[in-house]
Amino acid sequence: MKNATLIVFNGSGMALEEIEIAIPVLNPGEILVQNLYTTICGSDLHTFCGLRSETVPTVLGHEIVGEVLAFHPEHNQKDYLGNPLEIGDRVTWSIFASNADSVRAKGGMPQKADGLFKYGHAKVTEADALHGGLSTHCVLKHGTAVIKISKEIPLKVAATINCAVATVAGAVRLSGGLQGKKVLISGVGLLGLVCVAMCSADGAKEIHVADVNEGRLKLAEAFGANVQHLLGQNADLPTDIDVAFDMSGSSDAMEMGLATLTVGGTAVWIGAVFKTREVQVNAEQIVRNLVTIKGLHNYNYEDFVQAVKFIEANYAKFPFEKLVSAEFSLEDTESAFNYAVADKPIRVGINVARKNNNEE
Amino acid sequence: MKNATLIVFNGSGMALEEIEIAIPVLNPGEILVQNLYTTICGSDLHTFCGLRSETVPTVLGHEIVGEVLAFHPEHNQKDYLGNPLEIGDRVTWSIFASNADSVRAKGGMPQKADGLFKYGHAKVTEADALHGGLSTHCVLKHGTAVIKISKEIPLKVAATINCAVATVAGAVRLSGGLQGKKVLISGVGLLGLVCVAMCSADGAKEIHVADVNEGRLKLAEAFGANVQHLLGQNADLPTDIDVAFDMSGSSDAMEMGLATLTVGGTAVWIGAVFKTREVQVNAEQIVRNLVTIKGLHNYNYEDFVQAVKFIEANYAKFPFEKLVSAEFSLEDTESAFNYAVADKPIRVGINVARKNNNEE
Repeated sequence: MKNATLIVFNGSGMALEEIEIAIPVLNPGEILVQNLYTTICGSDLHTFCGLRSETVPTVLGHEIVGEVLAFHPEHNQKDYLGNPLEIGDRVTWSIFASNADSVRAKGGMPQKADGLFKYGHAKVTEADALHGGLSTHCVLKHGTAVIKISKEIPLKVAATINCAVATVAGAVRLSGGLQGKKVLISGVGLLGLVCVAMCSADGAKEIHVADVNEGRLKLAEAFGANVQHLLGQNADLPTDIDVAFDMSGSSDAMEMGLATLTVGGTAVWIGAVFKTREVQVNAEQIVRNLVTIKGLHNYNYEDFVQAVKFIEANYAKFPFEKLVSAEFSLEDTESAFNYAVADKPIRVGINVARKNNNEE
Repeated sequence: MKNATLIVFNGSGMALEEIEIAIPVLNPGEILVQNLYTTICGSDLHTFCGLRSETVPTVLGHEIVGEVLAFHPEHNQKDYLGNPLEIGDRVTWSIFASNADSVRAKGGMPQKADGLFKYGHAKVTEADALHGGLSTHCVLKHGTAVIKISKEIPLKVAATINCAVATVAGAVRLSGGLQGKKVLISGVGLLGLVCVAMCSADGAKEIHVADVNEGRLKLAEAFGANVQHLLGQNADLPTDIDVAFDMSGSSDAMEMGLATLTVGGTAVWIGAVFKTREVQVNAEQIVRNLVTIKGLHNYNYEDFVQAVKFIEANYAKFPFEKLVSAEFSLEDTESAFNYAVADKPIRVGINVARKNNNEE
């Protein structure tokens, strides 16, 4: 079998390093995939810029789509939904693997369960290096939910399923249903735009978006947002919102979101994955207005399945493809990161397959 | 029909006024009850002391138990559970009446629904004065959930069902189940003690209580608390709590409760029914630990039914009766308030029936 090429991250401020390794023999339950496309997530950028620390050396990239190259002989060749899985099938997979028999996994929190392993966040070792999206290959470990997807879905859209889309599917689950609801989404990056699309698809009655960036607010229109609130000015915010999603992680935005809620309203926070000032919560308002606040990090398998279903049904109904506004080859990953940091597009894509095709 | 006696509150610092009025003719759907026993709730004390404002003149007291004296001729003579209701039956009733057809009532929030009326909080008018517990009689309005209860339940315990016990039943509903859970209860007044008892009855694995008052912590033992945390010192608090209930309304306690939660934990806040400093919430912890915060004010009908069932099954299993440590007659209500403010017992009782019996 041919070698794999990896783009190794050794620390912020250091050049990315391209290395080649032999593809290892698979362990029981494992699948070898050829990575086709990887989108660079905000947390990859945070690591690249030194705003969060990751054990190094590592291979970043966890929003990935790939194609099955080989199974361990003992693999049952079925995907997470029980459908047959064959060599050449296009697949998405959960960004984590964990022990399905552990208490947290059984309690609907596999992303926080025993034996947790996360793609795009693990240390590169001699024995175990194929676990990031910035690589030609991934070895999918036992305990990973792998789902076959349609080849009709554009690669750049399919790549976002297993992080951005699945996390938003989790947020929607926590919202308790969107049909006929008035929602507010603060932070209109990829997660916010996916959330706008899911709210549209699920029949939300009013979809308010709030951001400090006018261009992003404008972009949200095409996904179904019908009221834009530019923050930082005297934003005239509603006070009858049923569900306030925060995708920004900004304490100001979370406080604003709580203030918009109606009686019985729910705030869903998924943006705050970094250190920020404490959110000031008026407990009397939470109590008297029967308010709920729910936090979510990553997602569970149910959310992942919903994300796949959502994208299969909706990839052509909303302009997801346009959100990956620049595309680089794997060997140009360093340029991709520098472009993403400087220009702040919604997403930058790494067309891993392009390099592979060039090689063949 | 004989007259009713009312103890009217005209404002903080003013003497309570005893008045006598003719019992009015019932409107469709109404029931006349003779109040038997009223316990003075913390919010009654807040109003008495001027810490919260109420429209005056009013008749305070909303933790009440009574006996059916008369039905409007068109009343179907059934209770909320569909059981037959007869003159002489002992009853508890929801502290509110509201429009059952409104959106919020249908959405499980009748306590915030259209046409809301609250016993013990309404203005005394010539036409409508019998709506408080500090009175010989109450007229139960259409839209009130009335439930027949056993005469075996001591009156002083039965009186607490429709406020303290039902509110805690709501908190338990929001907790998502207590079997095998580790719980923390901050604030061990009547609500906290009822919560300890419900956690015991529902099979919680560990019941931690936290308060600034050592006597209350001690009292909680008899209800099943197995770990006491005296706050204000270097309390050695756990960090693996599944459900942290706050009954205190103290921002310090709510912050402490959040810090004790394990991954996937839930904080239920019901104590914060007064203005207090803002709670400082670490949003990153809420997100990464998949934490939920739920506020509740009053309760819904489901909670009220659970409260009745809980007390019917458990009134003799826990020392609830001892919590009403002083008892006064209706004409001594002023003394009851003064005693409650000065001595801060868990509850003070007004034995309304005692006065009635003297009269007969």
